[in-house]
Amino acid sequence: MAIKKIGSQTIKLFNPPSIISTSTIVGPKEGDGPLSKYFDTILQDDLYGEDSWEKAESKFIEEAVKSALSKVRLNLSDMDYLIGGDLLNQLMSTSFAARSLQIPFFGIYGACSNSTEAMSLAAMLIDGGYADKIATTASSHFSSAERQYRFPLESGNQRPLTSQWTVTGAGTTILSSNGEGPYITHVTTGKVVDFGIKDAANMGAAMAPSAVDTIKTHLNDTGFKPEDYDIIITGDLGILGHEIAMEMLEKEGYNMSNVFKDCGIEIFDNERQDTHCGGSGCASSAVVFSGYLYEQLKAKKINKILLVATGALLSPTSSLQGESIPSIAHAVTIESKLRN
Amino acid sequence: MAIKKIGSQTIKLFNPPSIISTSTIVGPKEGDGPLSKYFDTILQDDLYGEDSWEKAESKFIEEAVKSALSKVRLNLSDMDYLIGGDLLNQLMSTSFAARSLQIPFFGIYGACSNSTEAMSLAAMLIDGGYADKIATTASSHFSSAERQYRFPLESGNQRPLTSQWTVTGAGTTILSSNGEGPYITHVTTGKVVDFGIKDAANMGAAMAPSAVDTIKTHLNDTGFKPEDYDIIITGDLGILGHEIAMEMLEKEGYNMSNVFKDCGIEIFDNERQDTHCGGSGCASSAVVFSGYLYEQLKAKKINKILLVATGALLSPTSSLQGESIPSIAHAVTIESKLRN
Repeated sequence: MAIKKIGSQTIKLFNPPSIISTSTIVGPKEGDGPLSKYFDTILQDDLYGEDSWEKAESKFIEEAVKSALSKVRLNLSDMDYLIGGDLLNQLMSTSFAARSLQIPFFGIYGACSNSTEAMSLAAMLIDGGYADKIATTASSHFSSAERQYRFPLESGNQRPLTSQWTVTGAGTTILSSNGEGPYITHVTTGKVVDFGIKDAANMGAAMAPSAVDTIKTHLNDTGFKPEDYDIIITGDLGILGHEIAMEMLEKEGYNMSNVFKDCGIEIFDNERQDTHCGGSGCASSAVVFSGYLYEQLKAKKINKILLVATGALLSPTSSLQGESIPSIAHAVTIESKLRN
Repeated sequence: MAIKKIGSQTIKLFNPPSIISTSTIVGPKEGDGPLSKYFDTILQDDLYGEDSWEKAESKFIEEAVKSALSKVRLNLSDMDYLIGGDLLNQLMSTSFAARSLQIPFFGIYGACSNSTEAMSLAAMLIDGGYADKIATTASSHFSSAERQYRFPLESGNQRPLTSQWTVTGAGTTILSSNGEGPYITHVTTGKVVDFGIKDAANMGAAMAPSAVDTIKTHLNDTGFKPEDYDIIITGDLGILGHEIAMEMLEKEGYNMSNVFKDCGIEIFDNERQDTHCGGSGCASSAVVFSGYLYEQLKAKKINKILLVATGALLSPTSSLQGESIPSIAHAVTIESKLRN
């Protein structure tokens, strides 16, 4: 069988799956931000009626999948696979959601690159005929992430100015072999990149080189230019990471100025909502894509985007052991209509 | 495109990838066990020259991949993807190995089902033409797992009789679109099953129902009978979990008596090496397959096996929050030669 790889790390899909539905659920802070009107559910209570943040996050995933399915009158049993991940140890929120949803389940972990890692695998499995329909999920929760990665919220630690605010929410996509788009047409899978940054409160800087590496590889592999895209959007580089990535790409001759954005910057109004460097977390790219960007693509206000979710593969243990922060970025091209 | 699914959860591969190489690395206790002669590297020092168990485990993965490649004179750059996972928070050992190996990387998490989750995804990606060659990995380390999931080793806690011994080691497979076998011919992806067991020192009992569910589904989907297999082998149910699974399957009318085994039982001599209920961990299925079973298949001493790695999707946090243990099992059929 002919290999569908073009260039070094990119797959061109010949039967591009259609994203037939999405759904998003976010916390109060995200619901108060500039993308408010694009979210399906805005919670007033980030515990969502549960007795822990981890269980609340799990319920986000469950409800987002059910909501996305109900929009297109599908049932859980119509899904061939559930592919998803979160930031919690042992994927607690996704694993427990998978227990309720009862869909054959592939758990993945790429930190905040989970959204596009899931979409990449799902797109190839559908393109190749291994599934007709797949649900992908990615989620995070400010409070569960803070206590796991940093400090108990109760201790009221100050956050340095380079830090980002983990997005509370979950986004899901329903991919199908049939549908009217938007379509996933290309998949570029990242390698792990590490420029030696050790500051776990400066994830944007740690992740910027991986975003640059994957974007460059994607453009080289496909022959696309930045201006072929309406938007090239990273997952959660935040304000500082975005600046670094922009500078690195422009130094290499790519003109990114009109197209380059970051979901972590878009989701909050930084003047009013003071998050320091913007949003982060798996949910950053997941809810900005499944909410705002999906709607723009459906309405054909934009026609072609490169979604590049970025993950910092550190663990509290690796930081304590003096290691720097490895990072990875996975990119998918999403187009509102198919070209020849 | 026609869907390649047969039954409810199984894929039949029409261009079955060949497992062209494997490699294993294990700790001293595993090297002293009954499968000793099938391992490529037996360490005398489970720190492997590193200054932490987590870093040692990461080096296991790196060295296992390099060793498997060198056996077939391939380079890291010949690999289209690396797919793998471990038990550590944030996949620390796999993420850091991926940083060194520089292969486009999909991190996965299915707890001890990682070995067959990785092989399932890799097999479909190669079968569909998305890759020519993929390296899969799965690893675990007794000492890193004990301190993360249970107690610091220094505190010398007693282990209850239902507990299992996490296998120290890593196993890798190199899958290729071309080769002389053994071949992965079928993939059955599990759903999460939870029978309400809350004892984190009795993982075999928690995982048995997921193994039973996946094995039953596989047999129903394919029409195979247990006796069509030389061996149906679970990942790490251990002595108690194996008994429970055997009883559940026989109650439903499957005659498993001559074929049903467990990697966690095979890897240690329980009389002499007293592990209580046998081995566990991602490395249990990974090194027993990539060592012993692979060699038997290559030599055509056995011709068809069902490898069913089993994962307990608990986290220390979920246990503290009073949750029971969800579990999952992924099965792959591996055959020494292709039939018509």
